[in-house]
Amino acid sequence: MSNTNPARGMRDFLPEQVRKREYVIGIIKEVYEKYGFEPLETPAVENLSTLTNKYGEEGDQLMFKILERGEKLRRKLEGGGVKSENDLSDLALRYDLTVPLARVVANYKNELPRFFKRYQIQPVWRADRPARGRYREFYQCDVDAIGSRSMIVEAELCAAVSEILERLGFDDFVILINHREILRGFLEVAGVDEKKHSDTLIALDKFDKIGEQGVSKELVERGVFTEEGGNNFIRQFLELMKLHGDPAYNIPEKKTAEFKKKRTEEENLTVIEKLREFIGKNESGKRGIESVEQILALTRNSPAYGQVKVQPYLARGLSYYTGAIFEIGLDRGDFSGSIAGGGRYDGLIGMFGKEEIPAVGLSLGLERILLIMEERGMFPEEIDKRVAADVLVTVWNEDTAAESLKFAGELRAEGLRVTVYPENDKLGKQFKYADQTGVPFVCVLGDDEIRENTVTLKNMKTGEQESVARDEIAGKIKA
Amino acid sequence: MSNTNPARGMRDFLPEQVRKREYVIGIIKEVYEKYGFEPLETPAVENLSTLTNKYGEEGDQLMFKILERGEKLRRKLEGGGVKSENDLSDLALRYDLTVPLARVVANYKNELPRFFKRYQIQPVWRADRPARGRYREFYQCDVDAIGSRSMIVEAELCAAVSEILERLGFDDFVILINHREILRGFLEVAGVDEKKHSDTLIALDKFDKIGEQGVSKELVERGVFTEEGGNNFIRQFLELMKLHGDPAYNIPEKKTAEFKKKRTEEENLTVIEKLREFIGKNESGKRGIESVEQILALTRNSPAYGQVKVQPYLARGLSYYTGAIFEIGLDRGDFSGSIAGGGRYDGLIGMFGKEEIPAVGLSLGLERILLIMEERGMFPEEIDKRVAADVLVTVWNEDTAAESLKFAGELRAEGLRVTVYPENDKLGKQFKYADQTGVPFVCVLGDDEIRENTVTLKNMKTGEQESVARDEIAGKIKA
Repeated sequence: MSNTNPARGMRDFLPEQVRKREYVIGIIKEVYEKYGFEPLETPAVENLSTLTNKYGEEGDQLMFKILERGEKLRRKLEGGGVKSENDLSDLALRYDLTVPLARVVANYKNELPRFFKRYQIQPVWRADRPARGRYREFYQCDVDAIGSRSMIVEAELCAAVSEILERLGFDDFVILINHREILRGFLEVAGVDEKKHSDTLIALDKFDKIGEQGVSKELVERGVFTEEGGNNFIRQFLELMKLHGDPAYNIPEKKTAEFKKKRTEEENLTVIEKLREFIGKNESGKRGIESVEQILALTRNSPAYGQVKVQPYLARGLSYYTGAIFEIGLDRGDFSGSIAGGGRYDGLIGMFGKEEIPAVGLSLGLERILLIMEERGMFPEEIDKRVAADVLVTVWNEDTAAESLKFAGELRAEGLRVTVYPENDKLGKQFKYADQTGVPFVCVLGDDEIRENTVTLKNMKTGEQESVARDEIAGKIKA
Repeated sequence: MSNTNPARGMRDFLPEQVRKREYVIGIIKEVYEKYGFEPLETPAVENLSTLTNKYGEEGDQLMFKILERGEKLRRKLEGGGVKSENDLSDLALRYDLTVPLARVVANYKNELPRFFKRYQIQPVWRADRPARGRYREFYQCDVDAIGSRSMIVEAELCAAVSEILERLGFDDFVILINHREILRGFLEVAGVDEKKHSDTLIALDKFDKIGEQGVSKELVERGVFTEEGGNNFIRQFLELMKLHGDPAYNIPEKKTAEFKKKRTEEENLTVIEKLREFIGKNESGKRGIESVEQILALTRNSPAYGQVKVQPYLARGLSYYTGAIFEIGLDRGDFSGSIAGGGRYDGLIGMFGKEEIPAVGLSLGLERILLIMEERGMFPEEIDKRVAADVLVTVWNEDTAAESLKFAGELRAEGLRVTVYPENDKLGKQFKYADQTGVPFVCVLGDDEIRENTVTLKNMKTGEQESVARDEIAGKIKA
């Protein structure tokens, strides 16, 4: 027998799962549309040259490359000169949604609006080692606003994503915010050599995972500090962390949403004040603080109010961020790590052209959100319990089958989802099938019923069975 | 400057195109759901072994194969023993939706219902030579009912697809129907050797393209007939064709829909009668005719009534069909070829297991349908003319930006799609941007307006501008 599993790290989505995915994706789209974002789709396959050298060495290794085809390949293989992968491949599978966006922005310059606000929800592929929650095909769900340096864009992104998470039922999400200029200011004040800024941030970003000593050790290894200098620096860093009491994740709280929002706002004020002292006259730092304050002010009357929390040590590994950075976490403590992240990256979208194009983006971790919603039982009943149909119409015998189909059409015209039992089986078997597949109502249309213009309706949950006038059935089921 | 086009034969879908695609896909899903079909999704990437030898030699050649990765590949390349493609590849891109369905049916045997009715709308990839309307990444849109041999399933498929095409606005579609057993009966009556049936059908299927002489020549080349025998056979075949007057495609008609449906029904009766004479006592032929009659009877009170037309010479190339075969064409003459096709194929879905599993399926040519709808101007105005937002809210100055965002939130709460102009530009520039991007309404929130709790509303089509109370704006725009 052949292997019928999906390929390693890939998944089949059976109906129940597709429905849940579409429910979440539907809400995301609806909200982004309300904020004036537009849908974009790009092909799964890109020219290899479009993707290589865009994701670092690791990315190039994890990319799924496509074998050349036909004569071209045959000649290469016969010639025997094939030494590396790139001799054999001309195409590759999409690795993320940002590089395709940059390509699109360059390619359709004259067709796209000056401020291009787009969302894109499509799968990407990475030949990573599969693990729990890590797949080789997974959806990314990106929203980006291209073309403006104004903080209005950051504010709108925070508002939109807050509205999405609220509508999905998350009551404990926090949008952590920091700014690259704040970090730069901090590193300058701490006396870190500019060339070592990026190394330092990578190490700091691991604080939650490897702790004080781990970071200190890594800083020494990366040649940022000698041991003593490192400890000094870490002390300063811990000061910075204390600005916020505890890390923002994992603070369970039994207070009302309003109380929490108010408290977050107050905390932000305190943090910013202390941060300002800390940064002193450093120009970068001051600029960063100002931007963050602006974003907070602009979200004050939006769904993001009280959800945004200033976290001055948030670094985010990716070095392409240039301004505000975001990370969205959950407070309740049952899940660590983030469910979304993003920030301003003014240097990246222009990669295929000559000009720098400002951009802010946010990526929702769709697969993670689905996992958490599943474990927390957050899907509404009509999605969670949805089955193939609202009603099963039975088939009495060959002669009445046409009438059963006609009746099914009548119910469908009333907006019901109807499946017709396809075979001329015994009625008991047809009921059993409805039961097994979870269909809540069964309609029997026998000779008597057809003659009397009635239908026998069975409620599969209560077991109740009654004779109902044919034109009243749909109303009865809908009620 | 780098090449920023999508890869050869692949397409980017800008917002306008995504909206149109989603509109069509949305209707297809909605109708299939109403008929009790459930959504399925499978990964883009399959194990190569799942796909090879399933699509004939041509298919194996047109498949996009994925290069092996890492150590495994390196060792192979260094070893120098690589001679063929399959040494270098372990995975491939999905080539159609039927083989993945067969794999899923085998893999989740115990989880899927006995009658599994699924639809699947996903892209597939083929390294075909790109041409107008032919892409290397394109969507397939399949619906299949697995597990039953009853004609009820065929009837439901015809009804569902009719409802879809009607809702999309096609008023000239025809579901051509024939049956493999009718063809077999015809070939037996005509004295074609059983071993040559498949060759003969392939040649006959080309009748519309290569005509009488072409088919006759091909039949001789394929060794079905000597020249004389071929001509004899063709004569018989032409008799069969005459059963229907003209081919069903390309018959423009100025009659009402009701008249056409009635006429189609009458024509079917005549055709079947003549066909019955033709077939005589041939057992296969009789069985086929009976099935077709059953399907016609079962669709008599469904949206498919009068849309199904018996066409006794319809063959369809694919040899895996075992029962009824369908092809959907358009009458109006502006497009030749079909927009959908399908049939019963009881031998295929069981390919990964031991038992034969009956199945009927229909595949809508989504890309073709989109093309025709575009050329015929069939998209409703709200899709065709849809732009990024219903309203653009301007930004007066830095101090009022927060108020603009707040106001945008108020409009969104009323269900409007709102974009906020992100920069502090001159008002004229903001209006111009609204005009260029087609946003129909602009709201100005200046110092005066904020003080007076009003908004200046400009209708971009009429140029009218008026001052409106802030809480009446949404209602005004919606009207």
